[in-house]
Amino acid sequence: MCEANAYMVKNDEEILLMESVDLVEPEPDGTFRLVGIFGDQMTVKGKLKRMNLVDHRILFEA
Amino acid sequence: MCEANAYMVKNDEEILLMESVDLVEPEPDGTFRLVGIFGDQMTVKGKLKRMNLVDHRILFEA
Repeated sequence: MCEANAYMVKNDEEILLMESVDLVEPEPDGTFRLVGIFGDQMTVKGKLKRMNLVDHRILFEA
Repeated sequence: MCEANAYMVKNDEEILLMESVDLVEPEPDGTFRLVGIFGDQMTVKGKLKRMNLVDHRILFEA
């Protein structure tokens, strides 16, 4: 499986937001909707900083 | 490997931009930098529409 983990980067620290993210979708209000492989969902307020697909990492920043 | 293919969606059609994308990075000018697993790079002018990691698909739109 090729899902990734989503992190919020704050002061050079990475805080895990959600594991096993399948879907990343920008919303019109500037947030991001994350949907996990089990259907779990969350909304991230922040900017996309970087995605490393081979490393399975999605980084957001405030 | 968990790289993905990047597509531009235009009139409900998906045009392949780049295969085997590893890194997706928003740039300050609003574009996206894509880096492939072999180090190939391209810049995408457009908005991120959706990423499906399990399906290995990154969709942009104009």
